[in-house]
Amino acid sequence: MSGFLRDEGANIITSDQHSTDPEGGTFFMRMEFALRIPPAEREPFAQRFAAGVGEPFGMDWRLWHVDERKRVAVLVSRYDHCLLELLWRARRGEVEGDIGIVVSNHPDLSEQVEAFGLPYHHVPVTRDTKAQAEERLLELLAGRYDLIVLARYMQILSGDFLSRVGAPVINIHHSFLPAFAGAGPYERAKERGVKLIGATAHYVTEELDAGPIIEQDVIRVSHRDDVAALVQLGADVERSVLTRAVQRHCEDRVILHGNTTVVF
Amino acid sequence: MSGFLRDEGANIITSDQHSTDPEGGTFFMRMEFALRIPPAEREPFAQRFAAGVGEPFGMDWRLWHVDERKRVAVLVSRYDHCLLELLWRARRGEVEGDIGIVVSNHPDLSEQVEAFGLPYHHVPVTRDTKAQAEERLLELLAGRYDLIVLARYMQILSGDFLSRVGAPVINIHHSFLPAFAGAGPYERAKERGVKLIGATAHYVTEELDAGPIIEQDVIRVSHRDDVAALVQLGADVERSVLTRAVQRHCEDRVILHGNTTVVF
Amino acid sequence: MSGFLRDEGANIITSDQHSTDPEGGTFFMRMEFALRIPPAEREPFAQRFAAGVGEPFGMDWRLWHVDERKRVAVLVSRYDHCLLELLWRARRGEVEGDIGIVVSNHPDLSEQVEAFGLPYHHVPVTRDTKAQAEERLLELLAGRYDLIVLARYMQILSGDFLSRVGAPVINIHHSFLPAFAGAGPYERAKERGVKLIGATAHYVTEELDAGPIIEQDVIRVSHRDDVAALVQLGADVERSVLTRAVQRHCEDRVILHGNTTVVF
Amino acid sequence: MSGFLRDEGANIITSDQHSTDPEGGTFFMRMEFALRIPPAEREPFAQRFAAGVGEPFGMDWRLWHVDERKRVAVLVSRYDHCLLELLWRARRGEVEGDIGIVVSNHPDLSEQVEAFGLPYHHVPVTRDTKAQAEERLLELLAGRYDLIVLARYMQILSGDFLSRVGAPVINIHHSFLPAFAGAGPYERAKERGVKLIGATAHYVTEELDAGPIIEQDVIRVSHRDDVAALVQLGADVERSVLTRAVQRHCEDRVILHGNTTVVF
Repeated sequence: MSGFLRDEGANIITSDQHSTDPEGGTFFMRMEFALRIPPAEREPFAQRFAAGVGEPFGMDWRLWHVDERKRVAVLVSRYDHCLLELLWRARRGEVEGDIGIVVSNHPDLSEQVEAFGLPYHHVPVTRDTKAQAEERLLELLAGRYDLIVLARYMQILSGDFLSRVGAPVINIHHSFLPAFAGAGPYERAKERGVKLIGATAHYVTEELDAGPIIEQDVIRVSHRDDVAALVQLGADVERSVLTRAVQRHCEDRVILHGNTTVVF
Repeated sequence: MSGFLRDEGANIITSDQHSTDPEGGTFFMRMEFALRIPPAEREPFAQRFAAGVGEPFGMDWRLWHVDERKRVAVLVSRYDHCLLELLWRARRGEVEGDIGIVVSNHPDLSEQVEAFGLPYHHVPVTRDTKAQAEERLLELLAGRYDLIVLARYMQILSGDFLSRVGAPVINIHHSFLPAFAGAGPYERAKERGVKLIGATAHYVTEELDAGPIIEQDVIRVSHRDDVAALVQLGADVERSVLTRAVQRHCEDRVILHGNTTVVF
Repeated sequence: MSGFLRDEGANIITSDQHSTDPEGGTFFMRMEFALRIPPAEREPFAQRFAAGVGEPFGMDWRLWHVDERKRVAVLVSRYDHCLLELLWRARRGEVEGDIGIVVSNHPDLSEQVEAFGLPYHHVPVTRDTKAQAEERLLELLAGRYDLIVLARYMQILSGDFLSRVGAPVINIHHSFLPAFAGAGPYERAKERGVKLIGATAHYVTEELDAGPIIEQDVIRVSHRDDVAALVQLGADVERSVLTRAVQRHCEDRVILHGNTTVVF
Repeated sequence: MSGFLRDEGANIITSDQHSTDPEGGTFFMRMEFALRIPPAEREPFAQRFAAGVGEPFGMDWRLWHVDERKRVAVLVSRYDHCLLELLWRARRGEVEGDIGIVVSNHPDLSEQVEAFGLPYHHVPVTRDTKAQAEERLLELLAGRYDLIVLARYMQILSGDFLSRVGAPVINIHHSFLPAFAGAGPYERAKERGVKLIGATAHYVTEELDAGPIIEQDVIRVSHRDDVAALVQLGADVERSVLTRAVQRHCEDRVILHGNTTVVF
């Protein structure tokens, strides 16, 4: 691979490797290199890479050009903390992606989103209209975005939706998974008397809260903190964990390995 | 309570309170006070407290004199890290208790324990001799110790043992409970791909790894850490979490509240 | 004190004490109690407290009624992270105070502040106009606010200003003081090769970055982080440290003790 | 470099790179590779490397064979915490080096060291005998050890000693440098009212506490912690920070860059 890049005139900037086992394991690699390739020559470059490196070494590989920024859609319900953190980070240029749309099953946050110059779509969901709502979401999202972020979106997406939306979906769950998967994690944390609460950002799969974990963090709590205090303390962990996961994903640092992730 | 102590001539050093609910909740309090009470006058003092404070306010209460140091027994299997940390902390005077005995189902650690001037009892356990082994443990421990610490003791104690040993039992479990209760937590953490591993010190109840949590902590891990690395990183968390739990318990800072703890 | 409050019919909610020395030290106490006192009876209540408790025990004391919310002014230059975090926290009801004004020596952040429904005053400062600028600040602030927060305000306030503004001033400094006091802390941190960078919230005194510390925190960095990365990583520490300091202050949890603080 | 190793039949296990600047900066690299080289062929291998890679690319380079374990000497005064942590880690096989000697200016810790099967040398130091003491240390250490660790050795080593001992010297300082360099850091931390205390492991240079930093960490403290409590809390940070620094050094992960370090 170094040889191929040298021959193409590229300058390697960073290189990360990981092998799951010194002998016979799966080998992962991420390389950033500097090479100006005009749009018209990108497809030929990829073909040369496939022929010279990808196929001979039996690689799964992908190529990402830094000027092709990720298009990001955010789904949210009523809580503003994860959403605003993402919008603010993106505005500061701290996310290698462009948030292009915010969709919510509630109208509450429209004004705040529009203050960032972004369109806000209200797609209500009731028990009876869930299927239509997902159709509406697919119209808005499918084929238009490279990443869907659930920033405390309190609806479960169907397997059908996940397969048709055509982009990975990152969710923030408000517990340190696998503890307290499912509903009411702060209530259950209080009941169990844990001394740390956490949050987990993971790719969404059909099985609830069971997808590959990208990032987690925790914060210390005590008997003094009631459920409302856990919600408030946890909100800070949620927004930082989700942000880091979205940043890593948009920088193409996250590689799936079965149901786990390699994060370079 | 302040009034009673003032009348007795005591000087309050620290006072902690906690109410589970501003109205109608359970009220917890821990007070340290300075008052020299000769041994012969301790029982009368306790009776005055009961009559003047405990009974009128319907309190559950206990009184601990700082010169009556906790007698601690440690049970261990083969791993030395939690045991040595406890022995070393106790020797430095950082535990308000005296470790008086170490019992193990393996002979491996006898030399290290004896270097601390402590007796080491080897009580082997096999599937067939578990009942006799528990009888032997009860001979060594029951009525002689105020606290039993399981410093990575890899045997499950029976409900019969727990009720007869006559002292609280603190265990260290090598996961952030309630995640990965039971066997093989590091293997399961690796399989699930968590980004943090942890340890939990809790009081032992008949239900495995489900007793009241005293202390927890975590450490960051990555895809680079194989199970052996998790074991090594986790060992540091285990020893510090168990030590803090034993210290808090020996300072009478831990109060049970249902299946949770108040730690002042 | 308990006796006085009982006699007045108050219900003690929380009580924190600290003594700098078991014998002869300074004693600090903070009590929250529930007692409905109509505005007209507050002055008489304070007089009874002074006569019955404050004077007999030689206390320095103050009384704060929860419905008299702190009036907070924020000064800022060009960086938005600390300011926005404060405005957002206040809007969520997580600060026991009301931000009433934002003043800046730059015009940049006016639109963002006005989106929160707050007045933004631009008071430019040059080397020659510093005295007039401080006069203008005093017109805007003196006597009108209970707390002045410097949310990355890059001007040094004169001792004259500090004595005339009539309210405590909290600053966020972008290092773990006392390391890297003064200008360019991130540059100097990079040059010294530290493995942690931090932020410090402190009360402003005439001596630069030397006032009583309220809160500090740090984040891990490595040789890979250049100065720009330190600035970005540090911004997260700055905004959380300043927020916690302002919250604690507004809840009257911070008591001065010489050049240090007791934070209950 | 990859080409050279491939031609020699080596298998690259890990590779880390760092460039201080994308253009014209200093480039750092650490590679672990698997290649069985009998002792007699190591010098020829090094010469081939120098001729084929080192000289053409103008590298500063060194080669370490994993079976040539680092020989480590530990200097200590009276505190046992850093010393015992190192001895215990080494016994567990968690340090890529062999501690071969412990030297102290006090006799106190001899028994504990000898329990690990290690020689303990007592070399007293007074103001008048400092020069002779350093001569004695040089007899014991110079040319015999690859690393000298000061595990709370409370004597300042002269520049003459440092240049003659012929091995890097790692010290643990009980503050987050550059704060509180020199004597009495915990006392000064208490006086300044900091909310975090720390420890710093660094290479020793002639200028006191000013050498390249390898590792740092901190722990939260409050107004409740007197100097004795800071000493106790800090001890835990000191032993873990020093241990990590010694581990990284012994794995050849630390590369000097001016007065800073690259830690791969």
